[in-house]
Amino acid sequence: MSLKGRDIMHARDFSKDECDYILDLTDYFHSQYKRKELNKIAVDKIIALLFFEPSTRTSFAFEAAIQHLGGGSIGESGVEATSYKKGESFTDGIRMVDKFCDLIVMRHPEQGAPQRAAEVADVPVINCGDGNSQHPTQPLLELYAIKKLRGDVSGLNVVLMGDLKHMRVDHSIVYTLAMYGNHVIYVSPPELTMPEEITNEVKTRYHAKISAMDPPEALEIADVVYITPIAKRRFEDPKEYEKFASLGTYNINMKTLQKAKKDLLVLAPLPRYEEVSTELDSTSYQGYFKMYEYAVPSKMAILSTVLGLDTP
Amino acid sequence: MSLKGRDIMHARDFSKDECDYILDLTDYFHSQYKRKELNKIAVDKIIALLFFEPSTRTSFAFEAAIQHLGGGSIGESGVEATSYKKGESFTDGIRMVDKFCDLIVMRHPEQGAPQRAAEVADVPVINCGDGNSQHPTQPLLELYAIKKLRGDVSGLNVVLMGDLKHMRVDHSIVYTLAMYGNHVIYVSPPELTMPEEITNEVKTRYHAKISAMDPPEALEIADVVYITPIAKRRFEDPKEYEKFASLGTYNINMKTLQKAKKDLLVLAPLPRYEEVSTELDSTSYQGYFKMYEYAVPSKMAILSTVLGLDTP
Amino acid sequence: MSLKGRDIMHARDFSKDECDYILDLTDYFHSQYKRKELNKIAVDKIIALLFFEPSTRTSFAFEAAIQHLGGGSIGESGVEATSYKKGESFTDGIRMVDKFCDLIVMRHPEQGAPQRAAEVADVPVINCGDGNSQHPTQPLLELYAIKKLRGDVSGLNVVLMGDLKHMRVDHSIVYTLAMYGNHVIYVSPPELTMPEEITNEVKTRYHAKISAMDPPEALEIADVVYITPIAKRRFEDPKEYEKFASLGTYNINMKTLQKAKKDLLVLAPLPRYEEVSTELDSTSYQGYFKMYEYAVPSKMAILSTVLGLDTP
Repeated sequence: MSLKGRDIMHARDFSKDECDYILDLTDYFHSQYKRKELNKIAVDKIIALLFFEPSTRTSFAFEAAIQHLGGGSIGESGVEATSYKKGESFTDGIRMVDKFCDLIVMRHPEQGAPQRAAEVADVPVINCGDGNSQHPTQPLLELYAIKKLRGDVSGLNVVLMGDLKHMRVDHSIVYTLAMYGNHVIYVSPPELTMPEEITNEVKTRYHAKISAMDPPEALEIADVVYITPIAKRRFEDPKEYEKFASLGTYNINMKTLQKAKKDLLVLAPLPRYEEVSTELDSTSYQGYFKMYEYAVPSKMAILSTVLGLDTP
Repeated sequence: MSLKGRDIMHARDFSKDECDYILDLTDYFHSQYKRKELNKIAVDKIIALLFFEPSTRTSFAFEAAIQHLGGGSIGESGVEATSYKKGESFTDGIRMVDKFCDLIVMRHPEQGAPQRAAEVADVPVINCGDGNSQHPTQPLLELYAIKKLRGDVSGLNVVLMGDLKHMRVDHSIVYTLAMYGNHVIYVSPPELTMPEEITNEVKTRYHAKISAMDPPEALEIADVVYITPIAKRRFEDPKEYEKFASLGTYNINMKTLQKAKKDLLVLAPLPRYEEVSTELDSTSYQGYFKMYEYAVPSKMAILSTVLGLDTP
Repeated sequence: MSLKGRDIMHARDFSKDECDYILDLTDYFHSQYKRKELNKIAVDKIIALLFFEPSTRTSFAFEAAIQHLGGGSIGESGVEATSYKKGESFTDGIRMVDKFCDLIVMRHPEQGAPQRAAEVADVPVINCGDGNSQHPTQPLLELYAIKKLRGDVSGLNVVLMGDLKHMRVDHSIVYTLAMYGNHVIYVSPPELTMPEEITNEVKTRYHAKISAMDPPEALEIADVVYITPIAKRRFEDPKEYEKFASLGTYNINMKTLQKAKKDLLVLAPLPRYEEVSTELDSTSYQGYFKMYEYAVPSKMAILSTVLGLDTP
C-alpha cells in the first residue's frame, strides 16, 4: 500500500485500511527509532514547512521526522502571512515553492487554504490545521497513542470533552474514532457543541454510535478522555464563561475522576490552559505527554508513504 | 573554469564566459535534479543565510540548493537588522559569522551593505539584494529560463516594463541582457525611468542597443517581456499613480497582448501585484511560474562554483 | 572521560579535569575542521535550539556544530516566549520537545528557566544564558582562545572589566579562570561590582586570588583583559552613566593601553558598544574576533561529549 502523491486535507481522506497501514508504519519507525537505527531513505527529498500560524508541536515533529529520514526542509514556523498576500498571491507563492520541494506541510488561519494550495501545487500538500476546520494528521498520532497506551483502538468509550464547536482537533479525531467503531461521547457546554453537519456526516459515513452526556456520567464509563481547553474569548457573555469555569465542570482533576475506570487514558492536544489538573501528571491516567513519544515516528510514517519512499 | 572564492556583488561582475559556464552548470544540475540523482559534493560546507529583509523565493531556493548539494545552512529569512547594529557592529557581526561558515548569502535594505560585508569577511559573499541597487544572481536564473523557454539568449527584443527607477532586478538584468547582445527596450512611466548612469554604463561597456518605447509599440515587437510592478508609494502625487493604474498602460493582459508575437515569453520576478493579469497564467506566454523550476539548479550552479566544489 | 547525559547549568558544574578534556576535544575538532576532514558521528542525533532571547553568536555556532557532526536541529533563535506560557506551560512544552530530540540547548530571559527545563526533560539541557545568571559554555570557548592566543591558561593576570554586576558572561568566566589558578582582577564602576556571593563562592571553592583595581593599575599588569559593555539603562541616575562615559574609564583604546604589556590579549564577548575602540581591531591585542574561529569546534566538543558520541 502507498499514499504516494496524495494530498492530506481531511480526516475522512483516510480509509480504515490506510489508517491501519499508517499505524503499522508508525510502529516500524518507532521500533527503529528506539533501537537508534538509521533509515535515511529520503536523502533526495526536501519538504516545505509553511506555517502561517505559530506551531511548535507539529512543525518540530515534522522537522525532526524528515531529518531522521535523511531529508531536508525549507521554511519554518512563523512564515508571515503578509509575504504571501491574500487571493491570487497566496497561490502564486505556492506555485513557486512547489518547484523547490517534494511535499508541502501547511498550517493556515483560513479554512480551505491548504485545499487552494493543493489545487495549484504539483507536489502533495498536507494540511496541518486550517482555521477551525481540520488537522487530519493529528488523529493518526492520537490513534497510535491509544493503541500503545490502552491496548486497542476500537470498541472503546471515547469522551471528547471541551470546546467541540471550535477545535479542529475534535473535528478531525471524531471521524477516525468513529471509523474504528468506537462509541464517541460528546461532553461540552451547550454553547460549544460539535457542529451538526460533522455529526451527521460521521454517523452516515461510519454508522457510528455518538452520544452526548453530562461530565459525571461520561467520565464514569470513559475508556479514553480527549480534552480540549475552553477559551474565554469563545463566549459572547463573559458571565457564561465564568459559570463553566467556576463550576469546574469541563475540567479534569482527581476529584472529577473519582468514579473513573482504573485504566482510563487521558489525552489532550496541549498547550494546557486549565482543562487538565497537574495532579494527573504523575498518575497512570496521563497520556498527554506520553503521546509525544510517538509524534516523530507518526510523522515519519505519513511523510514516507506520501513521498513514496521505500518502506515495508 | 571556477569562480571559487569570488564575491558576487553586481551583475557586471560576471564575464560572458562566466555566465555561459554558470548556464552550463545550471543545465547539469537541472538534468541531475530531474533524474533524482544525488550529488552530495558539499557535505563539509555550511552557508550563512543572512536576510535582513524578508525573502521567500531567494532564501528558499538557496536553502534547498545547499541541501541538495549535501551541505547545511545557518541563519534564515528574517534576521533582525537590529541585532546587527548600524556601522561597526554590522561588520563586527560579519567578522564573527564568517568564521562559522564557508559562504555568506545576504540581503540587506541598505545599498552597499553586502560590499561592506565582503570587505571584512574571509569567506565569499553573495549579494541577494541591497536596497534599490543590485540582485546579481537573479538574472542568471532569468537568462537560463529564457534559454530553456525561448530557445536562445541573444539577439532578442527584450522589454523591461514597469518601475525601472527603483527595481533592483531591472538594474541587474539590463547588464546581462546587453552583454548577450539583446536589444533592451525600456517601457516605463516618465517618473520611473531607468537611472541614466546605468544606461550609460551598459551602453559603454557592452555597446548595447537600448531603446525606450511606448507600451503598444514595444509589445508588438517583443520576444520577451520582463515586467515589474509599479507601487503606489513611489509616486509623490497619488493622482499620478491613479493615472497609470486607470490607463492600465503598464499592465499586461490578453487585450494589451493582442498584437504580440505568438511565441512571446512573459517573465516577472513576483510577487505579483496587478502588473500581470491572471488571464495569462494558463497561456503559452506564461514564464513567471515555469521559471522557478530552474531556481534551485541555478543556485546550485552558483554555490558550487563559488565554493569551489568538484563539478564538470 | 565523558559528560554523557549531563545537564550543563553553571560554570562550576565542570571539574578541572572535565575542562581539560573539553579543551583537548576542542583541539581535536579544530584540527579536523582546519583539515576539512569529515566527522559525521552524530547522524542519528537531533538537538533542539530553544532561544527565548535573540542570539546569533551562540545559536549559529551550535547550529553549525551539530551540522558538522552530521546531526540535525529543530527550533531556532526567536522562539516566542509566549508560545511557551509561564509556569506549568513552559515545562509542559519541554516535556513535549524532549521527545523530539537528543539534547536541548536553551537561552531564556528568566534565571533558572533551564534548570526547570532540566528537571522535567529526559534529555540533557545546556544553559546558554538565563537572565543575568549564567552562560556556562562561553568560558570554555574563552579559555580555549586564551590557550591558543596567549599560550597558557593559568597563572595569568586576567582583568574582568565593565559591568560585572549584570553580565552573565562575567558571572561564568570568573569560576573557570579561578579554577585554573589565574589572578582575577575586577575593574568596574562601584555601582557595577561583581555580586559578593559569587566572589565568596569562587574564593572558597578554588582558593583563588581575586583583587579589585582601578583601570590604569589593572591594565599595566594585565595579561588578558575581558571587557563587557556598560549599558546606560543600568544606571538609575543618567548623570552617573555620563560620568563614566565621559571619563572613558571603562573603555579600552590605544591611549588607555599605553603602559600595557606587549603581549596583552583583549577579549570581549561582543556585540560591541563603546567598550573597545576600533583602533585595536588590527593590532596584536585583538582576540575578540579571532576567538570566534574556535567557536564551532568548542561547541562540537561540548555536544559530542554530552551526546556521548564516539570521540578520542
